[in-house]
Formats: sequence, C-alpha cells, structure tokens
Amino acid sequence: MTDRMMPDSPETMLALLKRSVLDSGFSNLLGAEPLRCWQGEAELLIPLKPELTQHHGYAHGAVVGAAADNVCAWAAASVAGDVVTASYSLHLVAPAKGERLRARGTVLKTGWRQLTVRGDVYAESGEDSRLVATALAAIARVER
Amino acid sequence: MTDRMMPDSPETMLALLKRSVLDSGFSNLLGAEPLRCWQGEAELLIPLKPELTQHHGYAHGAVVGAAADNVCAWAAASVAGDVVTASYSLHLVAPAKGERLRARGTVLKTGWRQLTVRGDVYAESGEDSRLVATALAAIARVER
Amino acid sequence: MTDRMMPDSPETMLALLKRSVLDSGFSNLLGAEPLRCWQGEAELLIPLKPELTQHHGYAHGAVVGAAADNVCAWAAASVAGDVVTASYSLHLVAPAKGERLRARGTVLKTGWRQLTVRGDVYAESGEDSRLVATALAAIARVER
Amino acid sequence: MTDRMMPDSPETMLALLKRSVLDSGFSNLLGAEPLRCWQGEAELLIPLKPELTQHHGYAHGAVVGAAADNVCAWAAASVAGDVVTASYSLHLVAPAKGERLRARGTVLKTGWRQLTVRGDVYAESGEDSRLVATALAAIARVER
Repeated sequence: MTDRMMPDSPETMLALLKRSVLDSGFSNLLGAEPLRCWQGEAELLIPLKPELTQHHGYAHGAVVGAAADNVCAWAAASVAGDVVTASYSLHLVAPAKGERLRARGTVLKTGWRQLTVRGDVYAESGEDSRLVATALAAIARVER
Repeated sequence: MTDRMMPDSPETMLALLKRSVLDSGFSNLLGAEPLRCWQGEAELLIPLKPELTQHHGYAHGAVVGAAADNVCAWAAASVAGDVVTASYSLHLVAPAKGERLRARGTVLKTGWRQLTVRGDVYAESGEDSRLVATALAAIARVER
Repeated sequence: MTDRMMPDSPETMLALLKRSVLDSGFSNLLGAEPLRCWQGEAELLIPLKPELTQHHGYAHGAVVGAAADNVCAWAAASVAGDVVTASYSLHLVAPAKGERLRARGTVLKTGWRQLTVRGDVYAESGEDSRLVATALAAIARVER
Repeated sequence: MTDRMMPDSPETMLALLKRSVLDSGFSNLLGAEPLRCWQGEAELLIPLKPELTQHHGYAHGAVVGAAADNVCAWAAASVAGDVVTASYSLHLVAPAKGERLRARGTVLKTGWRQLTVRGDVYAESGEDSRLVATALAAIARVER
C-alpha cells in the first residue's frame, strides 16, 4: 500500500488487513485473526486447533513465532504502509498451552528505514491469560 | 529421550526424529523432512507448497523461522537428548523464493544448561541455492 | 548474594549494588551510577564523559550496550540474587548524543533458570530525553 | 569513507582503521587492536588489563560485547565503507577469563541497505583459546 492508499480509519485498516490474511496461504493456514491495527498498535488471535500443536497439546514454537512476527509487522504497517520483517529476537518464556494465542505489537521507534517493534504473545484459556513469549523486531520499510 | 535412550547411530536418530515429526501436528503441516541429525549437526528440507507462501509465492517469514528453529533444536537434540527452544534471533536476509527450503544447524557450544546453535536457511530451485536467513538460538536441556 | 543475604529494603539493595560497582574495574571505568534496583525494576545513569564517546561526541555503541546489559542484570538481581547475563539482543534506534545515558530495566518473566528482562536506554540533555536503544535479555540464575 | 576513498589494499585499510581507533575515546580506552579488516573479514585483539574486568578477573560482559560489535562493524566496513551498527544479538557462552580477547567477524550477506555479520569472541591465555561469545549483527550502510 502506498502512502496515498494508507487507510484513513481503524475499520478500513482492519478490513484491508483481513483481506491480506485471506490472500496469504500461510496466514490462512495459521488462522490468524486480526483484531486491531492502528497507529503503531496491533493485536491478533490464533485459535489453537490440533494442527498447530506439538506433543502434549502445546502450540509449536513456530506458531508462537509466527504470532509475534505477524503482530510486529502489522503494528509497523499501521504506521509505515508496506513493510517486511528484517529480523526479530524471540524469547519463549513459558509453555504455550491454552485455547488460543493472543499477540500484541507496539511500535517503539519509527525510523527512517526501519521500525523497532515489541511483540508479546499470551496463551489464553477462558479468562486466564499468561505471557508465553516476547519479541523485539526490526521491520523494514519497503522502498518504492 | 533420556541419555540411556540416546540413539547409537545416525540412522536410528533420523528414524526417531521422523517419527517425532509425524506425531507433531504443526511439523506435519509444514512438511519438514529431516535429512540428518547427528553429533551437533542437523539438516532438513521443506518443499514450498502454496499453503506455505504469501503473496507472490515467497515462503512466509514464519515458515523460514520454523525451518531455522527446528533445525537448531534438532542439532541440539543430537547432542543433548530432550531439549526445548529458549530463544532465537532470526535475520531474514533475502526473499525466500524457490521450490524448497533447506536448513542446516550447527551446535557452536554445548553448555551445562543450554546449547548455542547457529542455523542457516537456503531457498533452492534446481541446482540454485541462496542464503535467505540466518539464526542464533539458545536451546535449553529439559531437566529430568 | 544468597537468598539468605537478599537485601530487605530498596536502600540496602542500592547500597550493595553501589559497592559492587566500585569493585568492578569496568563498571568503575564506565561511571555507571545505580539509581534504583528493587522488585524487578532497575535504573542507572552514565554521564557521557569524552572517554565514552566516538567521533562527533556520540556515545560509543558498546557504552549503550553496557548500559542496557547492566540495567537488565540489575533488574534480574533484584528478584533472583546472584545472576549472569546469558544473552541479549540490542537494537540501536537513534544516535546517542547528550550529556548522559539513562537506562531502565524491567523483568518481564521470572523463570526457574532464567529471567527475561527488557531494557531501554535514553540519551538526555537538560530536560530532553530520547530513546536510543532497546534490549531484550536472558539473565541466568547462578546455581549454588 | 566514500566508495572513491575505499582503501585499495589490506595494509591501507588496516592503517585507516588504526587511525580511526585512536580518534575514538572509547575504543582507545578498550585498547582494541585491529589485526585484519579486508573483504568481509575482520579480526581484533583486546589485552585484558584490570580496568576491563569485573570481580574474579573475568572480562566484563560489556567488553565482550564491545569486541563483538566492533569486529562485526569492521568486517562490514571492509565491504561497504561507512557503516553503523543497527542491532546485534550476543550469546555469552563461557566465562571470559584469560590474558586477552580475540574477535573475528565474517560478513554472511551483503544487502542493499544492511549487512548481516557473524562475530565470535575467544578468551586466550598462552596457546589456549576458547569461544566465550558469539554474535549475529545487522550493520547498516550510512547513506550519503
């Protein structure tokens, strides 16, 4: 999306993001559902169906990583439009057991070429929510 | 696997790993195929079917991350038995376009509680192979 | 410090930390001044004397890294006693120009073997303060 | 240094780097001695004088971090000229005890805006050398 096309409301942005998820084979397969993406903040849900787990019903580390990577990229896109993940560090701090993963991303710094974004991933069951991973990502602007 | 059960040949180790991949919903879904896992080295292949890509046919960053995470954990498991990924840093250095991903992991240091592992991911088409990501991972021993 | 010796007030903890800084050749050389270290939070100041800069008066990246590493380790020590840095990722987001560096550390997760800590570093001049770096650290408990 | 000024021999590059170290307050204070800096590879030595250690004579983590950061930036500079560290992940894998630190940097990927570099730090005493840290760094080109 170019600056001209940058959505002008949280609702338009979310609709655009949902369409983009449907277009992406892997995001579809993950079942990542965007909840919010506006002004440097993003949030998503991933229901933990059996295909996303490993032995014993925990979410696979790569699913947790995908949640963190996606939410950081979306938070950056809400500020900078077209972006691509350059790097991230992911710390897995607890087993990701639960009914769903929730991830929240926050832009810490908007640079000229990169945005620095923090992402947190929670495993949730009913009312219960616990931090299972935290990430620090460098998201690059795509030049046009 | 306990030390007593630690496989005594590269073939036994590989067979054990392949069974474990079949047991894991997500690894199955990725289609990650172990090629080697012995004495601190591991290698895997992921054919790039459409469900693993995003717009334009590139492998999704999370698939690249999963390749790196898996191969690092397997390299560590070949030395230390039962392990779990504690953290990793992933640098995405080129678009992951190709017929398949190949990942190689090498244990750099075997510590008392953690192993430090380097993982490289390549995108391949025919004879062509190019580095698309490199990772540095801390893989923790699971205490018994 | 053993659990038995864990300080019982913020003032005792800070005094202990200041003594430890004086005992460390390199922390002395940096001139890192502990301001706070209690219940998972820590804060420090480093006045930017000429020996800590590079060309053009910016703090050297290694000084920014030392500020981040120290403040994360201190935040962890305020919860877990004797600790050692296992790994950290540091993102340098703006040039570190100013009269002093201020760093703040916050424990995100207290694990059984490691603590996950976030550290932010600011460059300050007069009333002005800007984020120059952010870090995510794994700090290991020292076994006894 | 602009492309026009890019040194035309390993000896010229090393001389240029040594002059730049003398100009930098902090590199001087560290006593980092460049040994090699050419075509994507760099190497440096840091003698472990008492000011660089902490309790018990180990090199302070920040000194190890500075060795890794510097050697990665120098390896990148040998390819790309004027550069600045954007981020790095540092894994401290063994206590840094010895007479000197030796660090080696290798460019893994030369990108359009960033270079991805691996750095390894060894603690040495007499003939003995052991890996104490490994880093993965993103080094940005400075635009002109």
